[in-house]
Amino acid sequence: MAELRKDPVVGRWVIISTERARRPSDFAPQPVQRVGGLCVFCPGQEAHTPDEILAVRSPDSQPNQPGWTVRVVPNKFPALRIEGELEPSGEGLYDRMSGVGAHEVIVETPAHGAALATLPEAAVADVLWAYRERMRDLGQDSRFRYVMVFKNHGEAAGASLEHPHSQLIATPIVPIMVTEEIEGAERHFRLKKRCIWCDIIRQERRAGGRIILEGEGFVALAPFAPRLPFETWILPAGHRSAYEETDVRELAPLARLLGEILRRMGRVLGDPPFNYMLHSAPLRAGLLDHFHWHLEIIPKLTRVAGFEWGTGFFINPVPPEEAVQYLRGEVPGSPVS
Amino acid sequence: MAELRKDPVVGRWVIISTERARRPSDFAPQPVQRVGGLCVFCPGQEAHTPDEILAVRSPDSQPNQPGWTVRVVPNKFPALRIEGELEPSGEGLYDRMSGVGAHEVIVETPAHGAALATLPEAAVADVLWAYRERMRDLGQDSRFRYVMVFKNHGEAAGASLEHPHSQLIATPIVPIMVTEEIEGAERHFRLKKRCIWCDIIRQERRAGGRIILEGEGFVALAPFAPRLPFETWILPAGHRSAYEETDVRELAPLARLLGEILRRMGRVLGDPPFNYMLHSAPLRAGLLDHFHWHLEIIPKLTRVAGFEWGTGFFINPVPPEEAVQYLRGEVPGSPVS
Repeated sequence: MAELRKDPVVGRWVIISTERARRPSDFAPQPVQRVGGLCVFCPGQEAHTPDEILAVRSPDSQPNQPGWTVRVVPNKFPALRIEGELEPSGEGLYDRMSGVGAHEVIVETPAHGAALATLPEAAVADVLWAYRERMRDLGQDSRFRYVMVFKNHGEAAGASLEHPHSQLIATPIVPIMVTEEIEGAERHFRLKKRCIWCDIIRQERRAGGRIILEGEGFVALAPFAPRLPFETWILPAGHRSAYEETDVRELAPLARLLGEILRRMGRVLGDPPFNYMLHSAPLRAGLLDHFHWHLEIIPKLTRVAGFEWGTGFFINPVPPEEAVQYLRGEVPGSPVS
Repeated sequence: MAELRKDPVVGRWVIISTERARRPSDFAPQPVQRVGGLCVFCPGQEAHTPDEILAVRSPDSQPNQPGWTVRVVPNKFPALRIEGELEPSGEGLYDRMSGVGAHEVIVETPAHGAALATLPEAAVADVLWAYRERMRDLGQDSRFRYVMVFKNHGEAAGASLEHPHSQLIATPIVPIMVTEEIEGAERHFRLKKRCIWCDIIRQERRAGGRIILEGEGFVALAPFAPRLPFETWILPAGHRSAYEETDVRELAPLARLLGEILRRMGRVLGDPPFNYMLHSAPLRAGLLDHFHWHLEIIPKLTRVAGFEWGTGFFINPVPPEEAVQYLRGEVPGSPVS
């Protein structure tokens, strides 16, 4: 049974996930999961995953059968369990809570060898729609306070399966990094009465050196203080706090921009391992004036070592202004033109 | 010229280190640095590093010549530069500062193929003494607010050189993770008038299930909420806030405990890549009632992926109580006995 535990000094929660418990000898890199040589996320293998929660599929097809283009299933080895009540408990200095949550996999395409970057725009929009629907549905469950949608692409970014997929984890606690973002944004709002991300977009538009691309209501930019080389954020140009409130008509332009950014990263950096994380407002927070949802994309080109782990200070060898020139195709000989 | 930049939302600083600037094509894994087939940290190659700052060497030997057992040199590719004044500047929402700091390498032994874990206790004590001396010396420089001593062992933990070494970086800003620890500890002290790490040691001694080893004034334990499997902390059993105030007579027992823990990790986990980070009080903070220095050791057995990057929530598949049983040799068939 998984359990949430809180560090008594800094207040960071961790998930102690005994569902995934392993002996020391089991820490060698895990091979890609296949069943009899077949990938469990491929069409025809639906019986090897838990029953689907949501799918985009042809009208004449049946659940848990082929005929889908996007398929959402519970993670077979979930970090948190969907059953049970929240049971906080204390033990002297320490706090714990039952490991209740949701852990789902969004299979992005039936094509094992495809990549999100190269799917047609409408297929990417369907993936983005699935994120929205799952956040809306999980938001009905009062046990959950937050849904983090994320993608691990490539082994160095933590992907254990090759078939294109993203994941989401719903947690009963608002994660500390989201809380820190919200607190920083609230501080700014109290002083200025403006959303800090709206201010960032305004300042970047005036200065120009860190915007990679704008398109139909969305902006892709390199942040002023990126943790990692080529870190890129995608934000709605207008103020929006909750991703799940995105209008379905906005999904196509968002899919277009996301696909274009991933393709450019792929060309400039040679299909790098990457993660992306969708930072949206906490569930049921209502429309927040001070929070602005954004998608953070981080290629994994450098290793995070002791200094970063100890300090939270990142050493980034690529100024964002240079990364932007590559991603805009302004560097002679660069593969983006 | 390196530059410090602050994220305007969460207040996290990053080092944009153009000294190490690289083009996108340069991000393939770097081979181990050698000069003409020889390691620059090996005896006889002293001319290939900047001049030494400190060394433990035989009385008849000369600086920057063989005859040393521990040698501290400036990093040849420093993340921060030692020259220059602190120059904070603003740009709308953004804050930056000149990238002033120190970045040094502590070469732990002349033996290229050795490891800190298997050096004699007196040699480990000399390394710990070198940390102390460098922190004392850098603490004289009023530009620096913090020194982080850390070690990256193994390529997966970010080591780019094979020869056993640790590093330190002195920064003009107290790192955000240290600030968060101090704030958490201050909160506890305000309520309880006690150091939280002293309280942790007391509670763990009563409960017993997470202490790995105690010895002559130092304790090694698994934290209640470890981020990573087999995470281990070493702390002085009595209250001490600043590592650099450690009495020289305490270095041998500390070296003994550190060596023993690293050897046990090596046996249980098969020479895992690991980082350690020395969390000490900010420079010139005086003796703090609420802060307790500690060394955090994190084997790198699992990959940190999108969920951790997005939330700060870690998923740890090994409960610390189980890790402790392996490190104590209580698991039948375990290599520690």
